[in-house]
Amino acid sequence: MTPGNSEVPSVSRQIVLAQIPEGMPKESDFSLMEVELPPVGAGQVLVRGLYLSVDPYIRSRLGRSSAYGKGLQPGDVILGCVVGQVLESGDPRLAAGDFVEGMLGWQEYAVAAAKTLRKIDPNVAPISTALYVLGMPGLTAYFGLLDICRPQAGETVVVSAAAGGVGSLVGQIAKIKRCRVIGVAGSDEKIRYLTEELGYDGGFNYKDSSDYYASLRDLCPNGIDIYYDNVGGEITDAAVRVLNTRARIGVCGQIALYNLETPPVGPRWLGQLALKQARAEGFQVPQFSERYEEGYRQLTTWLRQQRIHYREDVVEGLESAPAAFIGMMHGRNIGKQLVKLAS
Amino acid sequence: MTPGNSEVPSVSRQIVLAQIPEGMPKESDFSLMEVELPPVGAGQVLVRGLYLSVDPYIRSRLGRSSAYGKGLQPGDVILGCVVGQVLESGDPRLAAGDFVEGMLGWQEYAVAAAKTLRKIDPNVAPISTALYVLGMPGLTAYFGLLDICRPQAGETVVVSAAAGGVGSLVGQIAKIKRCRVIGVAGSDEKIRYLTEELGYDGGFNYKDSSDYYASLRDLCPNGIDIYYDNVGGEITDAAVRVLNTRARIGVCGQIALYNLETPPVGPRWLGQLALKQARAEGFQVPQFSERYEEGYRQLTTWLRQQRIHYREDVVEGLESAPAAFIGMMHGRNIGKQLVKLAS
Repeated sequence: MTPGNSEVPSVSRQIVLAQIPEGMPKESDFSLMEVELPPVGAGQVLVRGLYLSVDPYIRSRLGRSSAYGKGLQPGDVILGCVVGQVLESGDPRLAAGDFVEGMLGWQEYAVAAAKTLRKIDPNVAPISTALYVLGMPGLTAYFGLLDICRPQAGETVVVSAAAGGVGSLVGQIAKIKRCRVIGVAGSDEKIRYLTEELGYDGGFNYKDSSDYYASLRDLCPNGIDIYYDNVGGEITDAAVRVLNTRARIGVCGQIALYNLETPPVGPRWLGQLALKQARAEGFQVPQFSERYEEGYRQLTTWLRQQRIHYREDVVEGLESAPAAFIGMMHGRNIGKQLVKLAS
Repeated sequence: MTPGNSEVPSVSRQIVLAQIPEGMPKESDFSLMEVELPPVGAGQVLVRGLYLSVDPYIRSRLGRSSAYGKGLQPGDVILGCVVGQVLESGDPRLAAGDFVEGMLGWQEYAVAAAKTLRKIDPNVAPISTALYVLGMPGLTAYFGLLDICRPQAGETVVVSAAAGGVGSLVGQIAKIKRCRVIGVAGSDEKIRYLTEELGYDGGFNYKDSSDYYASLRDLCPNGIDIYYDNVGGEITDAAVRVLNTRARIGVCGQIALYNLETPPVGPRWLGQLALKQARAEGFQVPQFSERYEEGYRQLTTWLRQQRIHYREDVVEGLESAPAAFIGMMHGRNIGKQLVKLAS
């Protein structure tokens, strides 16, 4: 066991579910608690969180034991990916001072099994990238686009929630693969970010469009070969109508549906898939777990070559996490929404 | 040119679209005409139709110029596959007396380009099988199941419209691949046919079920790995809820939707695909055209080995075609619906 650090805390603040949200979550659905930290056992480490990632999928895990598995119940710590530093180690694989990334939840300190953590090299890139370009969102963009959607040079790729954590990477990878890339996002500022900073070929602000189908038709005169879907709902319905023969839909998220209390209803378009010999395929990044190293290696290369750019939206302090999460569900962030837990 | 046959007719009866159907087609939407046959030019043959196939996809081509392409207009001959015999040939590849299969439409005689016809060997199997097991429905079942859905031994396969032309073959091929096969069909007689004659492991009559989801759950205690969808609509919605991780939906037809005048609406379940890392893929058999020979060869082998059984529902006379087509849309046939045009 690494010698104890004099700064090792005995308690941690954490954010737990106060009540199961109805519809869009609000701050009162969360509460800040202080808990005593357990001792660090063999195989475990004590980690001080530095950055916390808030992501859309968390919404689907609050309460309702949906098909996504057992939901969190009141009193449970909210789940989330954290980058932190080891303060005390009971495992030979990690030493005090090491940087790690893992599902430590919305808390300032956590005791966790060392084998569930990924060691981060702070010399490769800023450690916060372990939650973004070089983390789960990066892998989600990488495998979702390349393996599920299989882009070919010259194809047209449409990305929804294009200025968000995953979407902003998908478009850049599609550009690296020499596709024409169109983004759908919720503000003019986001569209400017996509086209002026990330190299997207075009995009539209869906809040300003009265006809998503017409907007997509205008921006995709040769039709859509790939639709990388982060949102679901009416934008997806419109994109399906513009699909080309042998098009692929990568189904990543359905953020438009996460906050609905009643099961959403929409046009049936499965027949469009038959007609167009098209494919809609859902995925979860863990299905590619045996190839994470490949993904990290390629994303690191692209990042170092400055072929991938990124923006973080960082708020300060654990207590800001609920507002950051809710803001993200409303689409207020550009780039990856992070919470800085400590310096 | 082959010497003219003394029985060569100068006119043919045909069935044309009288008016564009609204909803379920009725007999008055069709009319019987007599037309003069054109002379047989170079590269052409005159064919006497023997059997005509009526298939669900025809509905989607009546009138509405949908995404399926330009629809038939009043006065146009109804499209359909025919097996017939060459009466007169202007092409060295075919001689009078040869049996051929092709898209000759709902008519007793047709002049067609020889290169658009497939020569049939009547010694392999009854010539009507060129419209069924050894024809487009056979290839649709073969490629749709094997290439799109990729069955593995021990998996559970659910087939909708299971007693129809395509469905009854899909289940038998899935059994050859050692899957557990469940059929959904519209009568108890059909379910008995599936389980007693075709080797299906189980099935349910959807007209007797008040809860398709419960019926599927009961019959698929290990979940659904493959759903071969011929119908769409509520049966599909229920099947989606029973899908296993990495399940595949082969989207062949959407017969439940073909006769709706307003765009159908239903629950949005794309999120289920993400959750289950599942895939829905549409197809059209021509996408496999370079591999038809493989399909015909394998289906012929299975047919000769009596590993594939089939039943034909044959009505007599061109004038019976509209009623046969409408009956099929109502699910009245078991096995392949054919119209015998001549002996």
